[in-house]
Amino acid sequence: MSKNLTKRSEDYSKWYNELVVKADLAENSGVRGCMVIKPYGYAIWEKMQAELDRMFKETGHQNAYFPLFVPKSMFEAEEKNAEGFAKECAIVTHYRLKNDPDKPGKLMVDPNAKLEEELIVRPTSEAIIWPTYKGWIQSYRDLPLLINQWANVVRWEMRTRLFLRTAEFLWQEGHTAHATKVEAIAESEQMINVYADFAENFMAIPVVKGFKTETERFAGAVETYCIEALMQDGKALQAGTSHFLGQNFAKAFDVKFANAEGKQEYVWGTSWGVSTRLMGALIMTHSDDNGLVLPPNLAPIQIVIVPIYKSDEEFAAISEVANTLVAQFKKLKISVKFDNRTTQKPGFKFAEWELKGVPVRIAVGPKDLENGTFEVARRDTLSKEVVLKDEIVNYVGDLLEKIQEDLFNKALDYRNSHITEVVDFEEFKEVLENKTGFVSAHWDGTAETEEKIKDLTKATIRCIPLDRVEEAGTCVLTGKPSSGRVLFAKAY
Amino acid sequence: MSKNLTKRSEDYSKWYNELVVKADLAENSGVRGCMVIKPYGYAIWEKMQAELDRMFKETGHQNAYFPLFVPKSMFEAEEKNAEGFAKECAIVTHYRLKNDPDKPGKLMVDPNAKLEEELIVRPTSEAIIWPTYKGWIQSYRDLPLLINQWANVVRWEMRTRLFLRTAEFLWQEGHTAHATKVEAIAESEQMINVYADFAENFMAIPVVKGFKTETERFAGAVETYCIEALMQDGKALQAGTSHFLGQNFAKAFDVKFANAEGKQEYVWGTSWGVSTRLMGALIMTHSDDNGLVLPPNLAPIQIVIVPIYKSDEEFAAISEVANTLVAQFKKLKISVKFDNRTTQKPGFKFAEWELKGVPVRIAVGPKDLENGTFEVARRDTLSKEVVLKDEIVNYVGDLLEKIQEDLFNKALDYRNSHITEVVDFEEFKEVLENKTGFVSAHWDGTAETEEKIKDLTKATIRCIPLDRVEEAGTCVLTGKPSSGRVLFAKAY
Repeated sequence: MSKNLTKRSEDYSKWYNELVVKADLAENSGVRGCMVIKPYGYAIWEKMQAELDRMFKETGHQNAYFPLFVPKSMFEAEEKNAEGFAKECAIVTHYRLKNDPDKPGKLMVDPNAKLEEELIVRPTSEAIIWPTYKGWIQSYRDLPLLINQWANVVRWEMRTRLFLRTAEFLWQEGHTAHATKVEAIAESEQMINVYADFAENFMAIPVVKGFKTETERFAGAVETYCIEALMQDGKALQAGTSHFLGQNFAKAFDVKFANAEGKQEYVWGTSWGVSTRLMGALIMTHSDDNGLVLPPNLAPIQIVIVPIYKSDEEFAAISEVANTLVAQFKKLKISVKFDNRTTQKPGFKFAEWELKGVPVRIAVGPKDLENGTFEVARRDTLSKEVVLKDEIVNYVGDLLEKIQEDLFNKALDYRNSHITEVVDFEEFKEVLENKTGFVSAHWDGTAETEEKIKDLTKATIRCIPLDRVEEAGTCVLTGKPSSGRVLFAKAY
Repeated sequence: MSKNLTKRSEDYSKWYNELVVKADLAENSGVRGCMVIKPYGYAIWEKMQAELDRMFKETGHQNAYFPLFVPKSMFEAEEKNAEGFAKECAIVTHYRLKNDPDKPGKLMVDPNAKLEEELIVRPTSEAIIWPTYKGWIQSYRDLPLLINQWANVVRWEMRTRLFLRTAEFLWQEGHTAHATKVEAIAESEQMINVYADFAENFMAIPVVKGFKTETERFAGAVETYCIEALMQDGKALQAGTSHFLGQNFAKAFDVKFANAEGKQEYVWGTSWGVSTRLMGALIMTHSDDNGLVLPPNLAPIQIVIVPIYKSDEEFAAISEVANTLVAQFKKLKISVKFDNRTTQKPGFKFAEWELKGVPVRIAVGPKDLENGTFEVARRDTLSKEVVLKDEIVNYVGDLLEKIQEDLFNKALDYRNSHITEVVDFEEFKEVLENKTGFVSAHWDGTAETEEKIKDLTKATIRCIPLDRVEEAGTCVLTGKPSSGRVLFAKAY
């Protein structure tokens, strides 16, 4: 176990790449842009999935599964969506390999096995789901249709980074159909609220809820709601989106319903998703130069117990105490590991579990046995405390809750102190160059200005906050009138 | 809700196809051979997943995720495996669409976006996982490596049927690596036992555990263990397989480890999987002419309560009683639905829940209110019982357990009475034509005989049972000596 992580202050990007690999979260595969999610990383993703799935079901959604492939004719039916994804999609053209006559032992694509119609590996599933919904929806009694899918999707990104941008990624995508515009908008808003709740209360990541500008909107959506988080390097990360699709897909795929009066109307739609990208947000919100820092809610191992001993007798006595403790925590559904490997020294174990972000470490040595104590260390603050045997279970239970809370508050403080209101463009550029973070500024509402600012500063409008106050002002670039501030930032 | 299911005795295959669609389990999609798994069907699959996942973790496995694509050079590295899957794989050749200059609004594959190396959509993941394992395994301390993946795979089958044979399907695939042959064989055996336990005790499907013959073995395996179930039409269905891979993949991908003496050795491997095909097995083991019959363990809704009323007052009084009952069952983690739709008559509701296989139906009418009773109906036997209010919760709790057991025993009786030992080929053919089921017969051990029997009867060797007794005999076709019986059947 060699730590030797690059420091964040030296090279944040390098620190991230190293940490993902060294903490056993994921690695690049032999397939360009595709990652392998390793068991430790996947265990964290499973915890996210379980909680999100619970929240989706609680809000009335059911899971289903739709095909991986979208025939080209369906793919191109909703024009904006097709245009948005055409440039980065994997295309299946053949369905058979054969022996290569020129190269013994090698295979080649069989030219006689060309598909009549090419299949697009789904970059998102609207274009396969809406034609299916057409068969499911006849009358207003079939609505709302509230469905979610857990799936893999593929977007042929040219520059990829583990979790943040990969050619294949895992996600969930909700796709709902409604009888009215009001209902569909309410659904989009409900789901962005579910995501914000999940990010803040489960992942301890503070987020800003907002709308995307037209430029940043999902291809095919009328309105895109988003949650935006701020990473430790001052760059923003879009952590989840929820789209009000209007009747765009209903019209493209002719999905109508008979309303209560028997009149045919087009259905209103939404879609919403979060992905394994959230793993990147998790890492870059909480972790430090010693490695991963995990909020207790997401930690596959919440407590590790490390024995410190010289003799076999000491090891035996400590093991007995540790095993009792393990049983007590398990009863409380707290995930605990007794690291009883005899092949590694305590220092090595400390460093390994620090790197892997286990929230609480309990060390037990001969002195602790004598005194009836444990040494409890927090991963987030690296602080230590000696705790009496009788109090340890309650103490650690409370501590896990406190760590979860403290991590959120720490990230919130950082985020809040990195939202800077600016009045002119000089200040705008200065903040982006020095303090970084979100810049709250007036904007004239045009795509041209947005584009110019992006060219000049690399900052994009992350969102128009849902809770922004109406305020007369002038655009930070053009001086034209504006009715409220939007949040700019450089982004992942 | 139109039932009108074809009767099994009329056309079993048609009955199956209709039932899958009418019970809202799955349907064909606009993509050739690919299915949409509808929410009700997916809810059953989720229950299977949850239980299997629990069993895998209990036996020390962790989940991970590997890429969807296998580069052609990796795909062809293990020759037998490549040969086995080359004829039915979806191949990605391009990564971009562009506007079709000849057809406004249409897209075409961009010829300038051809991949340097074709990517195969995984039909199974050995060829992408073993090159990854090469990086993870250095010494005996890294072994065993016990990993499972939940994923979608694609096999370009020409004739597809919902759940039984689809171009894309969902499955889990375990891939393990071991230091010794003995350990790897023990793992393969452990996993076939896990599958058998799951099939019998969770799905109520009796299975025969056995080996596959060389002809039927997984491409690239040294030995394939399987569980075979018998459907109501007398055809067998392979419900799960576990493969001892020997060192085949380790050699193909050069995966070695340093043993305790520091010597380099090739790793030993296994892989094992079950898929959404199990949904087909479930349907064809238990269901009847009225629709689906679900074992309580797998039923998304275990109990449905149907009110029978004429006036609003009656409905209100019944609703009160029903809601109390719902709360009582929920406390016991029993999944219950009060069907309080006012738009449908009781008869319609009875038929709908029968079609959907809900194990227990409770009806409450005004007379029941007076008498303090409920009418309880079993889906599997269609029998009814009047139960006192005070006893209902315990009664139904016990009944669910009894139904689970009874379904297994019924299927077991059927299966056992459809294993026929035969001595000569006339009898062999007669059983296959009339009684159907498994035919237990002596076989001379050659692939030629196996092939001939298949040509003559369409029956294949489903397995060499693990518990078969050594018994001298003569091959049913050739009269050559044999040391024990094998099971033949026509199969899905």
